[in-house]
Amino acid sequence: MIKTVAIQGVKGSFHHIVSQQYFENQVTVKECLTFDEAVQSLILDQTDAVVMALENSIAGSIIPNYALIDNHNLHIVGEHYLDVQHHLMALPNQDINDIVEVYSHPMALLQCKEFFKKHPHIKLVEDKDTAEVAQRIQSKNIKGVAAIASKLASELFNLNILAESIQTIKHNETRFVIVKKENHEISEEEINKASIKFELEHKRGSLAAMLNVMSDCKLNLTKIQSLPKMETPWKYAFFIDVTFDVYEDYKKAISIMEIMTEDFKILGEYKKAKP
Amino acid sequence: MIKTVAIQGVKGSFHHIVSQQYFENQVTVKECLTFDEAVQSLILDQTDAVVMALENSIAGSIIPNYALIDNHNLHIVGEHYLDVQHHLMALPNQDINDIVEVYSHPMALLQCKEFFKKHPHIKLVEDKDTAEVAQRIQSKNIKGVAAIASKLASELFNLNILAESIQTIKHNETRFVIVKKENHEISEEEINKASIKFELEHKRGSLAAMLNVMSDCKLNLTKIQSLPKMETPWKYAFFIDVTFDVYEDYKKAISIMEIMTEDFKILGEYKKAKP
Repeated sequence: MIKTVAIQGVKGSFHHIVSQQYFENQVTVKECLTFDEAVQSLILDQTDAVVMALENSIAGSIIPNYALIDNHNLHIVGEHYLDVQHHLMALPNQDINDIVEVYSHPMALLQCKEFFKKHPHIKLVEDKDTAEVAQRIQSKNIKGVAAIASKLASELFNLNILAESIQTIKHNETRFVIVKKENHEISEEEINKASIKFELEHKRGSLAAMLNVMSDCKLNLTKIQSLPKMETPWKYAFFIDVTFDVYEDYKKAISIMEIMTEDFKILGEYKKAKP
Repeated sequence: MIKTVAIQGVKGSFHHIVSQQYFENQVTVKECLTFDEAVQSLILDQTDAVVMALENSIAGSIIPNYALIDNHNLHIVGEHYLDVQHHLMALPNQDINDIVEVYSHPMALLQCKEFFKKHPHIKLVEDKDTAEVAQRIQSKNIKGVAAIASKLASELFNLNILAESIQTIKHNETRFVIVKKENHEISEEEINKASIKFELEHKRGSLAAMLNVMSDCKLNLTKIQSLPKMETPWKYAFFIDVTFDVYEDYKKAISIMEIMTEDFKILGEYKKAKP
């Protein structure tokens, strides 16, 4: 039973919105400044789960978060898609021409860089979290500084939205996952998606052979990403997501894949969400 | 003949180092503040090529740069690997305790975040380029501010290195590509690597079928990445790198793949480099 979830950021952050939507407001959130801190709280049993962004259409996979899940042997137990809309916000009675600095999360700054090309007088400063900046502007009554954050943040911290949906790509779907220490929360009948990782020698046809197994066992591939292993040249790690209708088909596929690959690892088994 | 190359950043940047190594000091560099600006200079024939980082082991693929190549129909004509080592530098006679702010490129800040956990008094500020900050610290004699940049930058701008190789992952290989308006520079006999992109319907086994063709035609896969197309759900784009011994084998494979996929596109044909 998940009662407390760790989120990156404070209330009003996109991770907070995801935790509200996924758990239907039935959980307590623990605010963490970094993903590392969120994972630490899970490991120390201070929380029951972590909400973590894993990929978006602009930056692709968030590889450092994959590394956190993999290195700490955590499990993905659910996923959720959120259409991330970034708004520029400041204290009431501030105009965009009053703004000299914008603080936000690096990913938010990256996603809004086209907007700020039209406002070259504004300095962009990296910060830990989108919503935490909004909170700080309110609590310390900071003039001349704006935050890039969610609508929820502007409501929670009484800020005025100076510009709406300032991200370059207007439809900005981000995939979040719910991460726990133990694998799956639900019965095998309900499981229809899995995230796996394996390594292969750099040998012609080795990945094709794996995909043939998956296809023969009626698995659908929804994501694939190779990552060269820097420590061991010519070895590749693959991160793959698959969906399926019958859990037994999946079980059969992974029993074959475990033999055919090195360091085969299930990163999670869960119920797929709608993008 | 490539005489002038656009780089992201100023002299002393990692892109500058790559342009020196790849072209053996035989080209003039045009300093650009963004990748967009570098690509614009190529399109306007102000430069003959662009040097562009495309992937590293920490962040994975740099998807926005793939988009630049794809959207402007540019071609990869060469690649180069650089072991990126980040150093913290400031004016001579400054100590790490004197430093209150560090300005650098978002990727450099991300790669060094573990180091700065031990120095929480230092504020991290996003900037356009690693070396440009080093240049600015020197030209404006800025105290209390440090740059994260290359050894070359510290030499060019007479800065003192406060801490060496501060990136979290010590071996930090980054893959750069040389991009032009026209495809390949070299004869077909010399070409042994290609970057391709295609789209597939979300249908079971569709990617496996493509990889079988590649394997049958003796192509080796060195990179694969799926990217969901946000505008069209259930459609996926794939970015793939292949190496081969015989150009004819590759030609045969792509003639089949062009028929089997949608929007098949060659992003470049070139000679592979050693990581």
